[in-house]
Amino acid sequence: MQIKIGIYGYGNLGRGVECAVRQNPDLDLVAVFTRRNPETVNILSGNVPVYPAEKAIEMKDQIDVMILCGGSATDLPEQTPALAEYFNVIDSFDTHANIPAHFAAVDKKASAGGKTAIISVGWDPGMFSLNRLYANAILTQGQDYTFWGKGVRQGPSDAIRRVKGVKDGKQYTIPVESALEAVRSGANPDLTTRQKHTRECFVVPEEGADLTQIEQDIKNMPNYFADYDTTVHFITQAELDEKHSGIPHGGFVIRSGKTGEHTEHNHIIEYSLKLDSNPEFTASVLVAYARAAFRMNQAGQNGCKTVFDVAPALLSAKTGEELRKMLL
Amino acid sequence: MQIKIGIYGYGNLGRGVECAVRQNPDLDLVAVFTRRNPETVNILSGNVPVYPAEKAIEMKDQIDVMILCGGSATDLPEQTPALAEYFNVIDSFDTHANIPAHFAAVDKKASAGGKTAIISVGWDPGMFSLNRLYANAILTQGQDYTFWGKGVRQGPSDAIRRVKGVKDGKQYTIPVESALEAVRSGANPDLTTRQKHTRECFVVPEEGADLTQIEQDIKNMPNYFADYDTTVHFITQAELDEKHSGIPHGGFVIRSGKTGEHTEHNHIIEYSLKLDSNPEFTASVLVAYARAAFRMNQAGQNGCKTVFDVAPALLSAKTGEELRKMLL
Repeated sequence: MQIKIGIYGYGNLGRGVECAVRQNPDLDLVAVFTRRNPETVNILSGNVPVYPAEKAIEMKDQIDVMILCGGSATDLPEQTPALAEYFNVIDSFDTHANIPAHFAAVDKKASAGGKTAIISVGWDPGMFSLNRLYANAILTQGQDYTFWGKGVRQGPSDAIRRVKGVKDGKQYTIPVESALEAVRSGANPDLTTRQKHTRECFVVPEEGADLTQIEQDIKNMPNYFADYDTTVHFITQAELDEKHSGIPHGGFVIRSGKTGEHTEHNHIIEYSLKLDSNPEFTASVLVAYARAAFRMNQAGQNGCKTVFDVAPALLSAKTGEELRKMLL
Repeated sequence: MQIKIGIYGYGNLGRGVECAVRQNPDLDLVAVFTRRNPETVNILSGNVPVYPAEKAIEMKDQIDVMILCGGSATDLPEQTPALAEYFNVIDSFDTHANIPAHFAAVDKKASAGGKTAIISVGWDPGMFSLNRLYANAILTQGQDYTFWGKGVRQGPSDAIRRVKGVKDGKQYTIPVESALEAVRSGANPDLTTRQKHTRECFVVPEEGADLTQIEQDIKNMPNYFADYDTTVHFITQAELDEKHSGIPHGGFVIRSGKTGEHTEHNHIIEYSLKLDSNPEFTASVLVAYARAAFRMNQAGQNGCKTVFDVAPALLSAKTGEELRKMLL
């Protein structure tokens, strides 16, 4: 049986979901919803209609799972609860501190509508969270480490572009190799922000701009750069476009823990991602959890869930028997 | 509420479970069962009784979860079905090819008794299987790689000790670094057994033994060594005891997959373990799943399960609210 998918919001993430649905034969994309003028939105699947966002609710009986592809700052806190009453929904809400409030708001609506919502799906929160949970449940005495990168983050990149004299720019977060090695050794180091990551900026200056001033302005910027060892490279727009147009990301979740009569044995659990396209990978996770949301709803498991509540087998198109035979 | 645990079989794994239970304040060890004379079995927890294995079933109402710590060759195929009718059980059955048959036998008994059994728990099968499943569900187009080591395996080590002229010995499986790097690069190489792992043997010869013959006998042994580049080192018993008495193990599960309109983006998901003590880590996984088996049974989810069927939150002593706040 085909699972009918809707995409709500069509930016990089929405397009990634569209691509991911094509890689899963048991899923069908039936509609894309946008707040822009639908006629201006070109999607990859020519046969799939693009509708205005307001039309979504009247299609509630034609869509099994709606995948929300808006941003966490202002879109999802409104959209996920609003749609969870009418659809099984998946979102990638990633403002860690606000997850409890978002969970409560979505749970209320999903429960009222008899629908299943899975929030904060992606890789962090998402796959990284799962790995923190598994590793903590297994090694109850230990220490957690999360490193990000090498990768591009939107916030710091936007901040660079707001600096006076900057025409364009991009920022990479890079984990410090020696810090990773110290963690992997089982030494359980206490690491500061500066010891864990460096930041590298590629900046296209405006003509005649004061390069020294730009470099100082970036390096001293609070939150994004002042707490890090930051390197600034000045390059041309052509080089930026050619070499830095991708959206790579990734990172490492490591738990170092001890077992034994006298906790004399050390163990390292490490999970890492190296992603050419952050939005496409996130989208691939969303799509797998869309399958799970549909199945959980069929089984009467309503309300708001997170990746912690989803049995792994529900993510796969394969049967339990196939999974035991092929992957166990 | 405390969960009452029984241990059935007290070798390295049983002792590891005993240690792991101590690291989990919500679990109580109530009894150890052995096929040896109980008076000859010294356990770490002086206040816990050791009983003969036959006494287990009469204690069915005093134990919430029985953790089976026997071997996969002959113990578990008999013991797990036999006990699953009376107890929630966990085992670490690891003969991959026989999992479907073992699952069917255990499912029949656990279902009949209204109990919950989780089989093939540990790290491979177990955590490695989970990572294969998650990675396959996310990256549906891709290739899987599993590497083992650096670590000691029982089978090949026993085989060394059966070679004529060998007094004692130990074998390590070691992943080939260049093969790991090729996989991490996204090149999707096809790798032979020989290209993935090497084997290193530390051998204590009997006095006057023919060392050249021993080396040839080991290197040409089918299955265990002939398909690998094998190195043989001759050392003294003292050196073997001092430097090679541990039971380390570990390995890597890597999936390399593609996404995008033209599958133009590559992604690498990697999970790895570096374990000082294979049995103690396996035991720590068993104990976390014992908690889950108890909870699933309370919720009426009976029959045979695997790690694929267990929602991650069930493994943790923390509440859903705590998990969302601290680990998501």
